[in-house]
Amino acid sequence: MTREGPFWDVMEGRAAPPPAAATLGWDLVAVDPEAGTIEVAFTAPEAFLNPFGAIQGGFLAAMLDDTLGPALVATLGPGDSAPTSDLHVQFLRPARPGRLVGRGRIVRRGRDVGFLAGELVDGDGRVVAVATATAQIRRSAG
Amino acid sequence: MTREGPFWDVMEGRAAPPPAAATLGWDLVAVDPEAGTIEVAFTAPEAFLNPFGAIQGGFLAAMLDDTLGPALVATLGPGDSAPTSDLHVQFLRPARPGRLVGRGRIVRRGRDVGFLAGELVDGDGRVVAVATATAQIRRSAG
Repeated sequence: MTREGPFWDVMEGRAAPPPAAATLGWDLVAVDPEAGTIEVAFTAPEAFLNPFGAIQGGFLAAMLDDTLGPALVATLGPGDSAPTSDLHVQFLRPARPGRLVGRGRIVRRGRDVGFLAGELVDGDGRVVAVATATAQIRRSAG
Repeated sequence: MTREGPFWDVMEGRAAPPPAAATLGWDLVAVDPEAGTIEVAFTAPEAFLNPFGAIQGGFLAAMLDDTLGPALVATLGPGDSAPTSDLHVQFLRPARPGRLVGRGRIVRRGRDVGFLAGELVDGDGRVVAVATATAQIRRSAG
C-alpha cells in the first residue's frame, strides 16, 4: 500500500526530511493515523543546554511541536498542511542531553482545526514536559 | 560598576555563554533590569526549517523562551535561577531564515514567580510570534 501526503512523502523517501527534524534528531518510533497517535524519538545534544546544565525549555518545546504536529500531518492528504497556531508547554522537570521520546495524539480533529496533546519522556520514563497545541488544517485546492 | 548574577556573569565574560544561546545565534541588543525589559537578536539558520520552508514553530518558541527568560534572569542575584514552568506561544505568520528580534518584558515579578511576555519580530518589523511565560524564582541559600 502506498500512503500519500506530506508525512508519508518523507517517511517513504519521496521528499527530503525537513532540516528542523534533523536538527532535533527526529526518528519515528510508531505512528497510527487511524488512532491519531505518534511516538517519536529525539536526540538532545549539548548544544541545547541552558546555563544550568539542562536542556533549554525552548528546545523541549521544539521537540513537542515536532511530535504533536506530525500526529496530525500523518492524517493529511497530498498538498495539505497544518501549521501550528498555538503551543502551550509545561516544563515538569529538567531534561538532560540524550534520548527523549515524544508521544503525541489528536484530541479532536475538526474540518479546519486540530487539537493536539502530548508529552516528552526521558530515558528513565519520567515525563519532563507536557504540551497542547492547536493547528489550522489547510487543504490543497485539488 | 560591576553587576552580579547569572546574566551579568555571562555578559561580562565571567561565565561561558550557554550552548543553547549560541545555537540560536543569541545576541543582546539592549537590556534594562530596572524596567524589566530586554531586546535580543537571533539568527535563524536553514537547519530550523520545517517542510514548508518556514522556521519550525518550536524554534521560534526556543527564541522566545530565550528572550522572556533573560528579561527576568537579568534581575537575579548571584546563585539565583528562574526556570520557566509554562510557555505559551501563538504563531502569527511564517518566519524565514535570517535575523529575528525578540522583545521581552517582566509583566509582574513576585517574590517566587515571574510573569513574562514578549514577541518575535522579523526583518520587516512584522510580529511573527507572541508568547507569555511563567518562571519560578529560586534563590540561593546565601
